[in-house]
Amino acid sequence: MSTYPEKSRGELISIRDQLRRDYETFKKRGLKLDMSRGKPGAEQLDLCEGMLTVLSRNVDCFSPGGTDCRNYGLLDGIPEARELFAELLGVSPEEVIAAGNSSLSLMYDAVMRAMYLGVAGGEPWAREGKVRFLCPVPGYDRHFSVCEAFGIEMLTVDMTPAGPDMDAVERLVSTDASIKGIWCVPMYSNPQGITYSDDTVRRFARLKPAAKNFRIFWDNAYFIHHLGAEHDTLLNILDECKAAGNPDLVYIFASTSKISYPGAGVAVVAASKTNIDHIKKQISIQTIGPDKLNQLRHVRFFGSAEGVREHMKKHAKCLSPKFGAVLARLDAELSGLGIAFWNRPRGGYFISLDTIDGCAKRTLALLSDAGVAMTPAGATFPYGRDPRDRNIRIAPTFPPVGELETAAELFCLCVKLAAVEKLLETP
Amino acid sequence: MSTYPEKSRGELISIRDQLRRDYETFKKRGLKLDMSRGKPGAEQLDLCEGMLTVLSRNVDCFSPGGTDCRNYGLLDGIPEARELFAELLGVSPEEVIAAGNSSLSLMYDAVMRAMYLGVAGGEPWAREGKVRFLCPVPGYDRHFSVCEAFGIEMLTVDMTPAGPDMDAVERLVSTDASIKGIWCVPMYSNPQGITYSDDTVRRFARLKPAAKNFRIFWDNAYFIHHLGAEHDTLLNILDECKAAGNPDLVYIFASTSKISYPGAGVAVVAASKTNIDHIKKQISIQTIGPDKLNQLRHVRFFGSAEGVREHMKKHAKCLSPKFGAVLARLDAELSGLGIAFWNRPRGGYFISLDTIDGCAKRTLALLSDAGVAMTPAGATFPYGRDPRDRNIRIAPTFPPVGELETAAELFCLCVKLAAVEKLLETP
Repeated sequence: MSTYPEKSRGELISIRDQLRRDYETFKKRGLKLDMSRGKPGAEQLDLCEGMLTVLSRNVDCFSPGGTDCRNYGLLDGIPEARELFAELLGVSPEEVIAAGNSSLSLMYDAVMRAMYLGVAGGEPWAREGKVRFLCPVPGYDRHFSVCEAFGIEMLTVDMTPAGPDMDAVERLVSTDASIKGIWCVPMYSNPQGITYSDDTVRRFARLKPAAKNFRIFWDNAYFIHHLGAEHDTLLNILDECKAAGNPDLVYIFASTSKISYPGAGVAVVAASKTNIDHIKKQISIQTIGPDKLNQLRHVRFFGSAEGVREHMKKHAKCLSPKFGAVLARLDAELSGLGIAFWNRPRGGYFISLDTIDGCAKRTLALLSDAGVAMTPAGATFPYGRDPRDRNIRIAPTFPPVGELETAAELFCLCVKLAAVEKLLETP
Repeated sequence: MSTYPEKSRGELISIRDQLRRDYETFKKRGLKLDMSRGKPGAEQLDLCEGMLTVLSRNVDCFSPGGTDCRNYGLLDGIPEARELFAELLGVSPEEVIAAGNSSLSLMYDAVMRAMYLGVAGGEPWAREGKVRFLCPVPGYDRHFSVCEAFGIEMLTVDMTPAGPDMDAVERLVSTDASIKGIWCVPMYSNPQGITYSDDTVRRFARLKPAAKNFRIFWDNAYFIHHLGAEHDTLLNILDECKAAGNPDLVYIFASTSKISYPGAGVAVVAASKTNIDHIKKQISIQTIGPDKLNQLRHVRFFGSAEGVREHMKKHAKCLSPKFGAVLARLDAELSGLGIAFWNRPRGGYFISLDTIDGCAKRTLALLSDAGVAMTPAGATFPYGRDPRDRNIRIAPTFPPVGELETAAELFCLCVKLAAVEKLLETP
C-alpha cells in the first residue's frame, strides 16, 4: 500500500470522492460528540462517592491536629493535607501550600505576583521592561492565555521525545534577561503525553538564567495519572535544583482535579522553603485561608499517599479502554498513509496528532460541521497560531467508549479528507 | 460622680494605685483569652451540621439545572447559587458571580485587575501614574493591606454616624483623578457597626469621579448579620447607581463566611451586567470555575433566601448575649468617666471603643501582658497608624460568654488604668 503523498492525482480524486460520500453519510446522523477538553468521565467521579460523607457530623470537622476546619485560619492549608501532598510529590511538608480548587489560579496568581510584586529576592518582572516566557510547543492553551493576559511575550521551543529542546532552552535562558519563566508539563505533557527524561530534568535544574528572578513553572498536572501498570517516571525537580545549588529556581504545581473532583479538588504549590515563605507572606494579603473542610475530606477519604495511588489505578481502568479505542481506530485507519503522526501516551489526558502541514484547521472544521467538538486548531500554540497548522489535541477521557468509537471513526475520515484535499491543491 | 479628667491629681493617684493592684491580681490568674478577630463561635458553626451531608450520593451532585457539579465548568458559579445571592442582595442573577470561599480574594483580585488589566471601559490604574484610595476610618485592616501591597496610597476620610463624611468624599473624588476607589463596609461597618444612611448611599451613587475608572468597593460583609429583630436597613446601592446613571460605579462583595463556614463558605461579587461580563472575561484566564459542589451544598441546605434569613436568626441568638455581656460591662465600668466612648451596634461582628487620645496602645499592651489578645492598636487605620492612638476594636463573637465576661472586666480595668496614667502624665 502506498502512502497518500505517493499516490497519483487520479487515485487521490477517487479516494476523495469516496471520503466525501462517507462524510455526508456521517453528517446526516446529526452527531453531538465532544472530545474538546480534558475532563474526567462521570464514572471516574463516581469513585469518590465516599468523600461526600466522610465529614458527616460537627465533630468530624476537626483535623487530626485539632483544628476546627470550619473556621478561619491556616493560610497554607491543614498540615495533614500538606503532608499528604508532600509525600506524593517527594518534597517536605513545609515546602507545600495546600490551597483552593484550582492549580490554574495558583499559576495565574504566581505570574501576577512575579510581574508586579516580585519573586523571593527579586525585582518585579514588570519593573524590568519587556517580559518574555518560553513556551514548549505544542503545549497547554491556558498557560499561554495567562502570559497573553499580562502582556508577556511568548517564545516557542520545540518539544522532543525527551522534553523541550534543552539546547534552545539553555541558550535562550542564559543569554536573554527578559526571559523570566518557562511553562513545563513535565509528565505526560499536554498534549503529547511526553515525560521529560532524567537528563532534561537535570538540565532544567542546572539552568543559569540571565534573569535573577527567573522561575520554572513546573505544572505537574498528571504526576500520578498513569494509564496502566507500565508507566513513566519523572525525576524530582526540587531535589535536582537543590543538588545544583538552584533551590529557588522552580515552582511546582499540582492538584486533585483529575484525582477527586475537577470542580472541588485541592490544588497545591510546592517549592523551596524560601519560595514558600515568600509566597505565604504575599498571599496573606489575598486570603485568610483555603477551604479546610474540603482538604480534610481529601485527607480522610484517601487516608494516605498509597490510598491516592490505589485510587488512580481505578481511574486507569476507566481511561485505558478509552485511549485504547481511539488509538485502535487511528492505527486501523491512518497507519501507513503518511498523512498523520500521533503519540501513544502511558498517562495523562490527551493524544496529540499531527496532520500534514496545513490540514489541522480543515480537519477540525469538517469534524465540527458533522457534530464533533474538538479543541480548536492552533490552541496548543501561543496566540492560537500553529505555524504549520498541523497539531490536533484529542481528549478521549470524557465521552463513553461507544461515543468515542464513533467520534474516532469520523475523526479519521476527516483527517483523510483534509489531507487528500490538501494534496490535490498542491500542483 | 466626676469624670476622670475632672478629678484632682491626688484622686487620680489613688485610683491608679487601686487599679494597679487589681491589675496585678488579674495578671496572676494567667488568662489566655482572645478577642482579636471576627470569628464565629463554634456554636454558630454547629448550626450548619446538616450541610455536611446534604450531598451524600453521586446523584445528589447534579444541580437542579442538571449540571454535574463535580466536573469542570460554570465560570460564574451554579445558576441556583447566583439566584440565591441575587435575591439576598437585591440584584438580578446575571449581576452575580458566585465564586470560591473568600470575598477577600475577590476584592484583592478586583484591585489587582483594575491596577494592571483595567476595569470595564477604563485604562489600568497603574498606567495612569499615582493611584490613591479613600479609606473611611476607622476601617477594616485587610482592606488597607490590599492597597499597601499594590503601592496604592491611602487617604483617610472620617466616619460619621451616617457613614463616611460625604462632603469630603465628594470633594476628593470629583477633583482628584488619581483617586481610583474607596473601601466601604456599608452595613454594620467594621469596626463601628455603623450602617450608611439612605442619604449617604444616594450620595455615593451620584458621585461624579474625576477618574473615569473609579470604583466603589462595597464590602457588604454583614448584609444580613443582625443581632436582633430590631435591625438596620441599607439602601440598594446598585439600584441607586442605576437611577443616578452610574450603573458601573460599584462592585458589591459578600460571602457566607459568617453565615455558613468561614473556611468553607461561598463568596460573591455583584455589579452591573457590564462589570460582571468584563470580570468574567478576565477571570476566565485565572480559573475554570469555583467549587460548585460547595455552592450546591449551600443551595440545598438553605433552600431559599428566606432559609438564609431564618438561619441568621439562630446566629443572632448565639451572638446577642455576647455583645450584651461586653456592653453591660462597659456600661457598668466606664459610663460617665469621660475616658471611653463606644458604639452599640445592631449587627455585625465588632464593638468599637475610643479611649482618650494616646491610650489605645497602652491599653492593649496592658491587656496583652495579662493574657488577652486583641486586634493590635492602629489596625483600624491605614498603615497601622491611628493618629490619635485611641481606637480599639473589640471582637466579642468567638469566646464563650463566661470568658468574655472575664476579658471585658479586665479590658475595662486596662482602659481605666491607661487613661489615669495618661491624665497623670499631662502637667
